[in-house]
Amino acid sequence: MASPTRNDCLALDSRDQLADFRNQFQLADDLIYLDGNSLGVLPRATKARLLDAVEIEWGQDLIKSWNKHGWMHLPTRVGDKIAGLIGAKAGQVVAADSTSINVYKVVSSALKMQKGRIKIISDQGNFPTDLYMVQGITNQIGRDKCQLNLVSPDDVISAIDDDTALVMLTQVDFRTGRIYDMDAITKAAHAKGALVCWDLCHSAGAIPVLLDECNVDFAVGCGYKYLNGGPGAPAFVYVAKRHLAKAFQPLSGWHGHASPFDFSTEFTPANTIESFLCGTPSVLAMIALEVSLDIWAEADMTAVRKKSMALCDLFIELVEDRCANHGFELISPRDANLRGSQVSFSHSDGFPITQALIAANVVGDFRAPNVLRFGFTPLYTSYVDVWDAVDRLVNIMATKSYDAPEFNVRGAVT
Amino acid sequence: MASPTRNDCLALDSRDQLADFRNQFQLADDLIYLDGNSLGVLPRATKARLLDAVEIEWGQDLIKSWNKHGWMHLPTRVGDKIAGLIGAKAGQVVAADSTSINVYKVVSSALKMQKGRIKIISDQGNFPTDLYMVQGITNQIGRDKCQLNLVSPDDVISAIDDDTALVMLTQVDFRTGRIYDMDAITKAAHAKGALVCWDLCHSAGAIPVLLDECNVDFAVGCGYKYLNGGPGAPAFVYVAKRHLAKAFQPLSGWHGHASPFDFSTEFTPANTIESFLCGTPSVLAMIALEVSLDIWAEADMTAVRKKSMALCDLFIELVEDRCANHGFELISPRDANLRGSQVSFSHSDGFPITQALIAANVVGDFRAPNVLRFGFTPLYTSYVDVWDAVDRLVNIMATKSYDAPEFNVRGAVT
Repeated sequence: MASPTRNDCLALDSRDQLADFRNQFQLADDLIYLDGNSLGVLPRATKARLLDAVEIEWGQDLIKSWNKHGWMHLPTRVGDKIAGLIGAKAGQVVAADSTSINVYKVVSSALKMQKGRIKIISDQGNFPTDLYMVQGITNQIGRDKCQLNLVSPDDVISAIDDDTALVMLTQVDFRTGRIYDMDAITKAAHAKGALVCWDLCHSAGAIPVLLDECNVDFAVGCGYKYLNGGPGAPAFVYVAKRHLAKAFQPLSGWHGHASPFDFSTEFTPANTIESFLCGTPSVLAMIALEVSLDIWAEADMTAVRKKSMALCDLFIELVEDRCANHGFELISPRDANLRGSQVSFSHSDGFPITQALIAANVVGDFRAPNVLRFGFTPLYTSYVDVWDAVDRLVNIMATKSYDAPEFNVRGAVT
Repeated sequence: MASPTRNDCLALDSRDQLADFRNQFQLADDLIYLDGNSLGVLPRATKARLLDAVEIEWGQDLIKSWNKHGWMHLPTRVGDKIAGLIGAKAGQVVAADSTSINVYKVVSSALKMQKGRIKIISDQGNFPTDLYMVQGITNQIGRDKCQLNLVSPDDVISAIDDDTALVMLTQVDFRTGRIYDMDAITKAAHAKGALVCWDLCHSAGAIPVLLDECNVDFAVGCGYKYLNGGPGAPAFVYVAKRHLAKAFQPLSGWHGHASPFDFSTEFTPANTIESFLCGTPSVLAMIALEVSLDIWAEADMTAVRKKSMALCDLFIELVEDRCANHGFELISPRDANLRGSQVSFSHSDGFPITQALIAANVVGDFRAPNVLRFGFTPLYTSYVDVWDAVDRLVNIMATKSYDAPEFNVRGAVT
């Protein structure tokens, strides 16, 4: 059966109930941006809101804005908006710091709660910074108090034992897009008395997440990928309500104090999710993130997921049909139910092909050693975008234009 | 001798070599802002620079900006600009995270470097979050590994002993403005084998700081007070070059890795000041901070200090003369050489008087239990501002207008 035509894709777009969301984002006409899983695009409303925050809140109202414009409540207000996207009731999420810092809070907290248990189980393919943060704790408190055990994804459940403090996994693998079964793994961990922390960097805004329903203990994630909060946007941390009274985390700065403005010399934790705050938050960054969460509040996540699966399936079908015999190998799960909102292919010339695509205004990214990674963001990506992206790839492969020297110069890619 | 008149102040302003800097900041006409030690004002250039960063760097160039617009180097580039203000050669400062988080990095690092020593000495009046972070570490690793010893400011040197890992002090006291002798205390600490960490939150941009010359080990500070980087601006951390190769800090996220884009599963620290980075930085917040540092780069810190001392002396003289017998007691050092860029008075009605002043467009702040605190920022505060501020205070005291009920409602103040 022939793969869909460009007209087929235009027809799909005309029936797409999410199509209008694209107008809420700034995207250059010819750009096909398949890297929203690395840095989400700019919502059109962000500029005006930031200007207002700069001119009026900071510039004019100055210090009064902590109360007058609710700056004090930004971390919980933004956190509650994120909660709505990840299946969490209010009062369990704050926007704060970076994902790395939030991992540190959670792992430290879990070790404290799980007195005597020292193992942190994760998988070899987890995003490195999550692993680095655990290594930092081990280096700090000793291998007799914190041990990182890395296993392959299929061995996670069997690795959980009575010495496991925490199972810490990224729900959607950043390279392949493979989705872990959150419910099954959380149950398996709990059965052994272990806690779980899910990294949602590639889940939040990408797939439906059911933290409360899965009885998850902790979760972390970032604001700058699918959430479109801007480069280096504040991250978030979720702590299940049942743990809040006893979840000690050592980055106990004044914003986590029960009464920060008492200026007492003794730390008393807030006993709410605010105890996972630390220092003064970046107000401008929080405000930029909030703008995009207000767009997300209008989106139906079931519809987003359905379109995401369709876009990814279409991409796979078109690449495998139109670029057959060009050496691409699908490394993402073929079953859309097992895959996040991204598709990855391996190719021995992955790096220069990625660069040639970027030059052709199709922005995906490359992950060493040989992975071409394409993120699909249903709020601003159309079916015809997918068709055009593959069409440009077909042209690059047919002409071997990626062989040009300028496409072989390495630089940092995030 | 009579205190200066308003005309005397206007004459001082006409001879002020820093007067033109005021044009670089946005300030409402009638506002006298004496709270730049809590939240610095908005530089006029910030808005356009942020708009450019949002529209062009994020909105248009998207992920490419990490290289194209140097986002990867923001923490060190901004850090080096701060270094110039605090007497540090380049390569020893990064802009990163919050002051609280940076305190955590430094204290953890010092404990690791000072194997066997467990005491952290600080003073009872230190800004609480610095103390809270040490308490967080104690709570995490145990009182046998980390003990916070709080002494009164005069007893700091005598408290340093062979068990002291780190002396951690805020150079300029946030309540009184008293300046510690950085050189003498650093020498005394080193004589006992202790390291020092200076919190520069009320020093950077307020007084000349000589970190390298004083042989300081570590320093931290914030970007949102005298540096005018915006609400919750990134903080900074200084690590003396001689310590960089061995200063392990446990918040070892990917931006502190020697090769972050190798995505290796093992953390290898950068061995440069970048090892004190952790997660992805807030790009927009970094850019806002950089704008104001570029203004600071044009300012002569000797001239800033001279004017700061003169503004503070003038304020004290006018309050003590014109508000005599109204119950104000100076709690800042009278000798300008021993005082930062702020003046504090105690008064039993400190809270409502502060509120009445704010209503009269003189913004200072209140610190429990009875402190009125006024920050003087020579780049945008004039001598006649000081005169007018006191004149409005005189009026408030004469009419007892601060007795009004609306001035007695407490709210959060930072």
